[in-house]
Amino acid sequence: MPVTPEQQAEIDALRSAPRSTLRAVSEGMEKHLYSIYPVLDHGFVRVVDYMGDDAAICQAARVSYGKGTKSVQNDEGLIRYLMRHWHSTPFEMCEIKLHVKLPVFVARQWIRHRTANVNEYSARYSILDREFYIPAPEQLAAQSVINNQGRGQALTGDEAARVLEILKSDSGRAYDNYEAMISQDGQEGLARELARMNLPANIYTQWYWKVDLHNLFHFLRLRADSHAQYEIRVYAEEICKLVADWVPFAYKAFEDYRMGGETLSAAALDCVRRMLKGEDVTQENSGMSAREWRELQEVLG
Amino acid sequence: MPVTPEQQAEIDALRSAPRSTLRAVSEGMEKHLYSIYPVLDHGFVRVVDYMGDDAAICQAARVSYGKGTKSVQNDEGLIRYLMRHWHSTPFEMCEIKLHVKLPVFVARQWIRHRTANVNEYSARYSILDREFYIPAPEQLAAQSVINNQGRGQALTGDEAARVLEILKSDSGRAYDNYEAMISQDGQEGLARELARMNLPANIYTQWYWKVDLHNLFHFLRLRADSHAQYEIRVYAEEICKLVADWVPFAYKAFEDYRMGGETLSAAALDCVRRMLKGEDVTQENSGMSAREWRELQEVLG
Amino acid sequence: MPVTPEQQAEIDALRSAPRSTLRAVSEGMEKHLYSIYPVLDHGFVRVVDYMGDDAAICQAARVSYGKGTKSVQNDEGLIRYLMRHWHSTPFEMCEIKLHVKLPVFVARQWIRHRTANVNEYSARYSILDREFYIPAPEQLAAQSVINNQGRGQALTGDEAARVLEILKSDSGRAYDNYEAMISQDGQEGLARELARMNLPANIYTQWYWKVDLHNLFHFLRLRADSHAQYEIRVYAEEICKLVADWVPFAYKAFEDYRMGGETLSAAALDCVRRMLKGEDVTQENSGMSAREWRELQEVLG
Amino acid sequence: MPVTPEQQAEIDALRSAPRSTLRAVSEGMEKHLYSIYPVLDHGFVRVVDYMGDDAAICQAARVSYGKGTKSVQNDEGLIRYLMRHWHSTPFEMCEIKLHVKLPVFVARQWIRHRTANVNEYSARYSILDREFYIPAPEQLAAQSVINNQGRGQALTGDEAARVLEILKSDSGRAYDNYEAMISQDGQEGLARELARMNLPANIYTQWYWKVDLHNLFHFLRLRADSHAQYEIRVYAEEICKLVADWVPFAYKAFEDYRMGGETLSAAALDCVRRMLKGEDVTQENSGMSAREWRELQEVLG
Repeated sequence: MPVTPEQQAEIDALRSAPRSTLRAVSEGMEKHLYSIYPVLDHGFVRVVDYMGDDAAICQAARVSYGKGTKSVQNDEGLIRYLMRHWHSTPFEMCEIKLHVKLPVFVARQWIRHRTANVNEYSARYSILDREFYIPAPEQLAAQSVINNQGRGQALTGDEAARVLEILKSDSGRAYDNYEAMISQDGQEGLARELARMNLPANIYTQWYWKVDLHNLFHFLRLRADSHAQYEIRVYAEEICKLVADWVPFAYKAFEDYRMGGETLSAAALDCVRRMLKGEDVTQENSGMSAREWRELQEVLG
Repeated sequence: MPVTPEQQAEIDALRSAPRSTLRAVSEGMEKHLYSIYPVLDHGFVRVVDYMGDDAAICQAARVSYGKGTKSVQNDEGLIRYLMRHWHSTPFEMCEIKLHVKLPVFVARQWIRHRTANVNEYSARYSILDREFYIPAPEQLAAQSVINNQGRGQALTGDEAARVLEILKSDSGRAYDNYEAMISQDGQEGLARELARMNLPANIYTQWYWKVDLHNLFHFLRLRADSHAQYEIRVYAEEICKLVADWVPFAYKAFEDYRMGGETLSAAALDCVRRMLKGEDVTQENSGMSAREWRELQEVLG
Repeated sequence: MPVTPEQQAEIDALRSAPRSTLRAVSEGMEKHLYSIYPVLDHGFVRVVDYMGDDAAICQAARVSYGKGTKSVQNDEGLIRYLMRHWHSTPFEMCEIKLHVKLPVFVARQWIRHRTANVNEYSARYSILDREFYIPAPEQLAAQSVINNQGRGQALTGDEAARVLEILKSDSGRAYDNYEAMISQDGQEGLARELARMNLPANIYTQWYWKVDLHNLFHFLRLRADSHAQYEIRVYAEEICKLVADWVPFAYKAFEDYRMGGETLSAAALDCVRRMLKGEDVTQENSGMSAREWRELQEVLG
Repeated sequence: MPVTPEQQAEIDALRSAPRSTLRAVSEGMEKHLYSIYPVLDHGFVRVVDYMGDDAAICQAARVSYGKGTKSVQNDEGLIRYLMRHWHSTPFEMCEIKLHVKLPVFVARQWIRHRTANVNEYSARYSILDREFYIPAPEQLAAQSVINNQGRGQALTGDEAARVLEILKSDSGRAYDNYEAMISQDGQEGLARELARMNLPANIYTQWYWKVDLHNLFHFLRLRADSHAQYEIRVYAEEICKLVADWVPFAYKAFEDYRMGGETLSAAALDCVRRMLKGEDVTQENSGMSAREWRELQEVLG
């Protein structure tokens, strides 16, 4: 996604006009504001605004717990305590507003996270651009043979070439026909709200997406996870980098307790306790199904 | 959307096995349960479950207002009072679960109503059917010339024929290629989560959608409105009929105070008061913009 | 609520350290940041942070409506259009964080607005202060004789004196006993989470409350309304003043279309149309109940 | 909380009038409908309505995952899979409506769970009953010495007697004065919306509370936990029993994967892996703080 000179000029103008504020400022985030971080072939993520910083999380927690938080000596310790014990409301006191450009099929997954504010480009009002996601060759993956949901190895040779050719030509034809239908050159022109139905799910849309930090962490835990579909994961990973600079203590705690953590069931905990006592625990005597047992083995390395 | 014999047999089986319950029962809704009500060319709405009835709304209101509701003599009067004075919580005490089949571009509008529960058919896991929305000729409308959003007159003659031909052939080709890409016949087969990106927004999806009556009324007010896009309005209208049989008092109040009502601004109210005193009010002396004045004239007939 | 010298020093310190930011800044709001605005006898409202301004509302709307918003020439016109046509999502793009000190019985009403983030002072962790709301004499009102919910005239003479005396002495005794129960002086000391149950609903609590502008307007419409209980209305009115300086165009539109507007039912609209044609409309031939008719007369002045 | 003869008669009447429905019926829940399950000294929980059963969870999941769920052979297996992999939306397809009577200080904790529908008895409209929570002697606990939030051992002897006496006499006096202030016998009578402020937080209120099963599980995980305050935990435990009869497969999965499970951080997992390899891991070489180490020891037994 090359930034056009006009876009770059607009971003430069926004970034060249610092103003004075009495609000909490995150220096780490200021350096990213407005800049475009490319994702996929035509997509991007950029920060349009934010509210709060690590200190704001602590400030809210201290209102709640009053003198009860005095014993935690510093902000990082308090934030780690809050994350570990699932005290979610202080994290809700930070907010971020992103401008995201993304394929429609990614947008359809993303929107299922309901606790957020969204303004999406409307194809009822306006005409969509001719921009389609065409996977890079290494992402043209086969259906997984072990997982109904998911991908296996990348396609190769003729098959890969055929698929790429289909995606490109069908997108192009659909857009040509979209333009032909809405054209008012020598004809009435079909309503935009109808013509859009001819466009495939790899066309790009864009939106402003505003969310609090607690719900953003929930989104990132699911979408930056290795099981998430690649095309949404790359957005989540890009956002992770921004959050790491915005609220470094909170992000570190999120990595340790959420992204890098695992929830063990009662049965799994029982197995671990028996193993630590030296018992020879097998799937047969574990009380767990074969699938759960395999998942536990993966967690325990 | 012709119901297949298998579907009809399943519905008949569900409808032939009444069971005993101590819960509130709405006779008006029982007669609709499970039945398929066709919408558009391949879509439908059907009620899968419901909770509560008109009496349940009153019961909840009486918990809140205690003896304060004794003076309202009957359920219908109380429900009208609640609706008129925007007491929304008693209406939240009823819930409905619908099974809806709808084109993806309609689903994208619908999902923006966030306060609802949704389980959508996943094209990551499963293969979509070859079913596309192709508008009826009278719905093939031109772009409105007075409204950026919306439709004008139906297209006619060659233009209409060209548009129909495009929508049909592009849908068909996109689906043929979708099938070709995921096929594992002599090739690896592209992952479903990728192949779906080739499908246009008029393909049908389906979901279970569960919502409380207050939020359903909000949805219906916006989507059964004459300004809503036709393709979502027909779903809203079908749901209106079901709700009218489910909670007849609440639905009647909704029609009178919401669907048939209008909100007048402070300036508009001032104009109306002056008119009623016999003053000759014009746009020039109204204090309103030309557009607002025109909207007021429409409201006042 | 006299501000303590320590509090004032902290506020002065926060206000004396402007920082540089690239974000949208609302000059009108910057002047209020951190300052304490007293409400009731010991309560206050103060702004701790905010995100966005009038321009941010328009920016989000223009992402949605694309070229469709070009025809609206300026920000104020666009904002008024959005408010008039119930386009709520652009208003969700602004956010405010308030620090509020308020009596518990007010907090219990307030918290029913669910779409907000809250961190409340916890009386499980910490000890509440000896501060109780005692109404000013002119607010010591009798039960309304025409409305199950609401107040009539102020009490006078002996009755007023008795009520004031009860409120003061019961609060004082309850707090003395609260302190006595949690004291660890010569005894174990009751757990705070239990001792708090002895405190009456006029004790003050405090919280951080964060909400987007759309939901804030909804709160203000209900709580700054003349039918709202006085003790929450004064908070809403104080917040109205802050919002008027923060997003002046949006606040003006809110006043015109929401606070000053009225929703007329289908039957009421029909009456108005008949009146404007010169017909003599009475309650008898209006098709409305006596109560609805009376409400319409009030609206029409 | 003895049930009055009138209440019992009403419950008996409701339970004696089974009706016919085509909806999903949970036999396990039907036996509980309307019955009062006492909690604390005057509180209760009772089921007023419900929607769905274990099969409804699977039905919704099968809509989502289509043929992808065919490989899971039975409903229980599918439910366990959904719970283990945090697929929350199918659980949202069940709904329950409870009538709860509870002390105000418990209600204040409970209401923080925002994703639910509530109709609470309004003390603006109506007069509260003279019913206060007075802890049983074994629940009159001292402040914990190791935890800012929480209780230690039960108080004994004179101190316990003093506390009980205070709670009883302050409640009684507050209520006497509440009645005296609102009385219209020989005086105007203070407005109810004001008089209620004299009542302490151990007075009972009641509400209808409606929530979907996913959010109910979240509530139960936090409130049936051993760290939750006793006075809300007993409500959660009573609800657990009802849910176990309503959706037995889902409840069992909830017990195994949520209530009985634990989330281990990245550092904790690393320690467990090292221990299982036979390494001697101590707090010093664990990379964890003393507090986190202690928490891990507790989890590992």
